[in-house]
Amino acid sequence: MGPEFQLIDAFVAAAAVSPRAPRGPGDDAAVLPRRRGEICVTVDAVVEGVHFRRASSRLEDVGHKALAVNLSDLAAMGARPRWALVALGVPRGFRIADARRLGAGFGALARQSGTALVGGNVTRAPGLALTVTVGGEVAPGRALRRSGARPGDRVWASGTLGDARLGLSLLERRGGPGARRLRGVPRLARMAIARQRRPVPRLALGAALVGVASACIDLSDGLVQDAGHVAAASGVALDLDGGLLPVSRALVAAYPDGRARARAAASGGEDYELLFTAPAGREAAIRRLSGRLGLELTRIGEVRRGRGVHLRGTGTARVHGFDHLA
Amino acid sequence: MGPEFQLIDAFVAAAAVSPRAPRGPGDDAAVLPRRRGEICVTVDAVVEGVHFRRASSRLEDVGHKALAVNLSDLAAMGARPRWALVALGVPRGFRIADARRLGAGFGALARQSGTALVGGNVTRAPGLALTVTVGGEVAPGRALRRSGARPGDRVWASGTLGDARLGLSLLERRGGPGARRLRGVPRLARMAIARQRRPVPRLALGAALVGVASACIDLSDGLVQDAGHVAAASGVALDLDGGLLPVSRALVAAYPDGRARARAAASGGEDYELLFTAPAGREAAIRRLSGRLGLELTRIGEVRRGRGVHLRGTGTARVHGFDHLA
Repeated sequence: MGPEFQLIDAFVAAAAVSPRAPRGPGDDAAVLPRRRGEICVTVDAVVEGVHFRRASSRLEDVGHKALAVNLSDLAAMGARPRWALVALGVPRGFRIADARRLGAGFGALARQSGTALVGGNVTRAPGLALTVTVGGEVAPGRALRRSGARPGDRVWASGTLGDARLGLSLLERRGGPGARRLRGVPRLARMAIARQRRPVPRLALGAALVGVASACIDLSDGLVQDAGHVAAASGVALDLDGGLLPVSRALVAAYPDGRARARAAASGGEDYELLFTAPAGREAAIRRLSGRLGLELTRIGEVRRGRGVHLRGTGTARVHGFDHLA
Repeated sequence: MGPEFQLIDAFVAAAAVSPRAPRGPGDDAAVLPRRRGEICVTVDAVVEGVHFRRASSRLEDVGHKALAVNLSDLAAMGARPRWALVALGVPRGFRIADARRLGAGFGALARQSGTALVGGNVTRAPGLALTVTVGGEVAPGRALRRSGARPGDRVWASGTLGDARLGLSLLERRGGPGARRLRGVPRLARMAIARQRRPVPRLALGAALVGVASACIDLSDGLVQDAGHVAAASGVALDLDGGLLPVSRALVAAYPDGRARARAAASGGEDYELLFTAPAGREAAIRRLSGRLGLELTRIGEVRRGRGVHLRGTGTARVHGFDHLA
């Protein structure tokens, strides 16, 4: 148990998260303060060899990403992060210094987002794994859901799409022609890699969309697949226009052909942007919000009666229906 | 993603947990109902090759134990379980039928304990791992803590100690003389193995100790080590009498010598009984509680000024101080 406690201490000290929970860590469970709002909880794991490789990701990045992917889920609910629990699985040879680096990456994002580290657990495991549980608060009955999209609503996306997948191709050194092209533009290549390693959860956007958006989801598995969840939960069809998808200069450099670029933007995962729907009358409010947050918000399609996700302008004839994805 | 969703569906269907969360699973996070009390949260992982082996544990047992060890933490806080999140790491070759068996073990205990399965996550992993987060409710300001033990308080333990470790020795087939002796008594051997595979969280006891106990902890790492946490958090010494430790007939059969038996009871982990302290005047109330719950509650020592855990009657001269354990 000695080494276990030392690893916890090193992680927590490096995370330097403040404020701590009012009570705990130190007891068998953390006692959370009562909140006026409802609490949203979610859990997600980041596993060595599956979600990252030690050779291509710094442990600071792993600590950041393990928290970021969870905060992104809270952002999609419109919830403000309050607390986190960390379950750490560590392989043999994992050092105190490694725990410190993980904790530093986790802690920087925790502080920035107002997330208190209230407890956790360390256990031996075949490979490094961080399983993070987060709790966030939202006003009663106001959480954003996947199920609220209605025919006539507009579909929006934040930021730019496809960068994280491009960054992964660059890291994995087995990327297609897009990744090869981007290697010639180091500054843009670094940007794409940063999107892969250190996603930014859209917390301020999610909180501001409460009362504005009719449905919301975070883009972790790729635009078409995640849009499919909204379509299915809402019982509607989403018509998306590949030509409208917001893309970065990195994606333009990697995919000079517009249709190939749209395909990359529509299928890449791990962008951790928000996809949301809103009534047509909300367009002006959303544009003002974009200016206030300094975050691009782009109208990419429309909700109509029907089923599935229908993506035009990618040069492929096929329609991406929800059933097709299952 | 197809197989991931199928594994989730199989686990959830087999868990058959009711009531589901009021909303979610299905959104990016589960929205929990508001509670009058405070919420206690904790996380714990059960990892293949570390906490269990597929060869010697059924997956139903693994699902049970992953939830049980977390509920035991809630019991130690005096909290009533409300919800759980499950993060499942699955190796290649993990089948739908396997997910069903895990879910069945998890679900039976979840139903019995009133725990709603409100969300989760499945990811590829090098070996099977279940990371379970639970939330429980306790009246505001009433959670049991490790820090409340005061000189003059009595020290109590629930149930019997040392059985789970004995069960592990039997399963691992490299047990010492105790395990060898017990193999001659199949009924008692099966009991010890059941204690190892399917620990019973002492939820009713924990809830009843609110307002009675001055400090409480669950016995996961072994009596002396866990008592050390109470001593350290409370700033006191715990004097324990090895001759008073509650033991089962299995432990008596395995260790005919009283001192060896006391050592086994004091050092074995994973009993998931509760160790608690209470003012001397509470003795009658605790004995009534024991009768009402049908659970043995045994006075095993006393709290005094000082530091560390001091265990008499094990035939070893050494004093188990907290610093020694660190």
